[in-house]
Amino acid sequence: MTDTPEEPLLLTPGPITTSRSTKEKMLRDWGSRDRDFIALTQRVRDRLLQLACGEVGHVCVPVQGSGTFGIEAMLGTLVPREGKVLVLVNGAYGARMAEIVARMGRNHLVVSHEENRPLDPQALEEALVGDPVITHVAAVHCETGSGLLNPIEEIAAVAARQGRRLLLDAISTFGALPLDVAALPCDAAVGSANKCLEGVPGVAFVILRKDSLAASQGNASSLSLDLFEQWQALEKTGQWRFTPPTQVVAALGQALEEHAAEGAVRGRGDRYRANCRTLVEGMRELGFQTFLPDALQAPIIVAFHSPRDKNFVFSAFYDFLRDKGYVIYPGKVTTADTFRIGCIGKVYEEDVLSVLAAVREAMAAFSFKPA
Amino acid sequence: MTDTPEEPLLLTPGPITTSRSTKEKMLRDWGSRDRDFIALTQRVRDRLLQLACGEVGHVCVPVQGSGTFGIEAMLGTLVPREGKVLVLVNGAYGARMAEIVARMGRNHLVVSHEENRPLDPQALEEALVGDPVITHVAAVHCETGSGLLNPIEEIAAVAARQGRRLLLDAISTFGALPLDVAALPCDAAVGSANKCLEGVPGVAFVILRKDSLAASQGNASSLSLDLFEQWQALEKTGQWRFTPPTQVVAALGQALEEHAAEGAVRGRGDRYRANCRTLVEGMRELGFQTFLPDALQAPIIVAFHSPRDKNFVFSAFYDFLRDKGYVIYPGKVTTADTFRIGCIGKVYEEDVLSVLAAVREAMAAFSFKPA
Repeated sequence: MTDTPEEPLLLTPGPITTSRSTKEKMLRDWGSRDRDFIALTQRVRDRLLQLACGEVGHVCVPVQGSGTFGIEAMLGTLVPREGKVLVLVNGAYGARMAEIVARMGRNHLVVSHEENRPLDPQALEEALVGDPVITHVAAVHCETGSGLLNPIEEIAAVAARQGRRLLLDAISTFGALPLDVAALPCDAAVGSANKCLEGVPGVAFVILRKDSLAASQGNASSLSLDLFEQWQALEKTGQWRFTPPTQVVAALGQALEEHAAEGAVRGRGDRYRANCRTLVEGMRELGFQTFLPDALQAPIIVAFHSPRDKNFVFSAFYDFLRDKGYVIYPGKVTTADTFRIGCIGKVYEEDVLSVLAAVREAMAAFSFKPA
Repeated sequence: MTDTPEEPLLLTPGPITTSRSTKEKMLRDWGSRDRDFIALTQRVRDRLLQLACGEVGHVCVPVQGSGTFGIEAMLGTLVPREGKVLVLVNGAYGARMAEIVARMGRNHLVVSHEENRPLDPQALEEALVGDPVITHVAAVHCETGSGLLNPIEEIAAVAARQGRRLLLDAISTFGALPLDVAALPCDAAVGSANKCLEGVPGVAFVILRKDSLAASQGNASSLSLDLFEQWQALEKTGQWRFTPPTQVVAALGQALEEHAAEGAVRGRGDRYRANCRTLVEGMRELGFQTFLPDALQAPIIVAFHSPRDKNFVFSAFYDFLRDKGYVIYPGKVTTADTFRIGCIGKVYEEDVLSVLAAVREAMAAFSFKPA
């Protein structure tokens, strides 16, 4: 099982490129019920809660798996069997939340928007006024399929004014864009280790309002994804209920230290914004067009229109860049042919400039025009 | 976030001590939809299937999370909404399967045995004859709470004779005790990376009969834990549906190579059997008593009766051994006061002898008698 020795730079929505020092924290084994790991878990939970400004009324509960596992755990734990969720959808990740609640058999209503339009607070207000049975509103902070940043403060304000509870997918923004769960207000927000926090994949976490979580016993039809039970175990013993990915959690502990050293949310966000600006400007100079107008673009991942030129074939373009050491991402919006380049992970401006140079080489090699 | 520099040896049911070379495979980042990781996933799936003798009619589907996530995924995917599961229980892990199906709202029947008794094929046959509605039988290979090895071949034979489908928790035995899913016969068996395969925690896998899996579309009420959808994605694209724990999978790939180099299931099992024999003999020489008779003991983890001597306090005993560099495990049977010492992981006979020496020191330090 030999691997390609050369490791490409990941310009994707995650897993992303992480620091060597973060990965080196995985070079030991941990007893998952031993004192060292209990202390590590507590440090990580405390720091994540702090980053979400949740120290007063919220708690942080980690869960094994990908971000989607965290989303499903949040929805299954907090939405009662007799609850009803309004799911706001303007892309693949909103649609995924709708699929999760449908699978669970929870009553729900989907309010859809076009993929290049932000969520509309007024449409939400009308829907909530029209359906007083709705208990929860589910929304995505950054729609990674398109790269769009949703106006989450306005959405939260509408939900609060109408007395409904907001459940937030903050997976692709946590750690790089400000999140204040107390001020929003927000009942729960999901994050993941391997996005803007620059840890490795394998663990998600949910920041939950303590009183909502305390009232959620018995809601979950999944044992593995029951955040109430997970929280209870952590509070009583400091231990996860089921074997945690110990090395992944250790890497997250180190990643959080490096995140703090970079200036936490502000510093990390500044670097990603610079990456995004350099990427967008450079691609435009080459003739590419972004899927979104700048006002809607989050500094996480950028979707570009695929060239209409018949000499452009995405798989060949991907392989060309891959051979140069860069992994980009296919498109995910349904209404346009796009590809994506990420701005997150241990990626700096000079890396973005190198990617741009490789894209220019690909244009020459395949003789395609970008528009 | 500094850690204790000294890394203890883990004598637990997992996470276990792994090789340095296995952990070093985690020192790179992988694009989870990139060709290298697709190839790695395929190699790992192929090898796991081969270890279970499932090449002809079965497939291997990995799932993020702990072994329990794999168990829940197996039960939720294969048991139809109108199905009924007979769960055989003689310990904590059988009880956990019963809890999972109860949570899911699936019809089920629990057949319980004492914790120091093996599952009884005759009791199963009577229950199945008495309830023709039962579609599936769920059983645990090694009950890690007590360390008991269940007579899984006889259980499988009864289930087959009665035309019911066997779902097996093989988490703590996979890779060290023989498993032949075709000969058993067995519809599905769950394993985990961080038990006898000596990988790191964060991924489980299920070996499933292909025709049963193919007929399971729409059964799962969980999106994250739907093995049918996971299988479909892997077959069509080679990719996991949701971000996999890439480093954990890479470590498993290396662990499987080292497992093969040790002589695969036979070689690994031989070392664990030697560890177990040395441990049991040594502890008996010191005066301790095993919870189980030797005929029922699996070479995975051994439960010992806690000394009745008032000078024996488990937490102090644990800390004493921990300070010497050994992590042992608390008891989990409900009918007796026990503690456990594991035989699995990168642990050799000389390590077991060192643990025995440390136990002897603890007896002297605390002045307790072991019986």
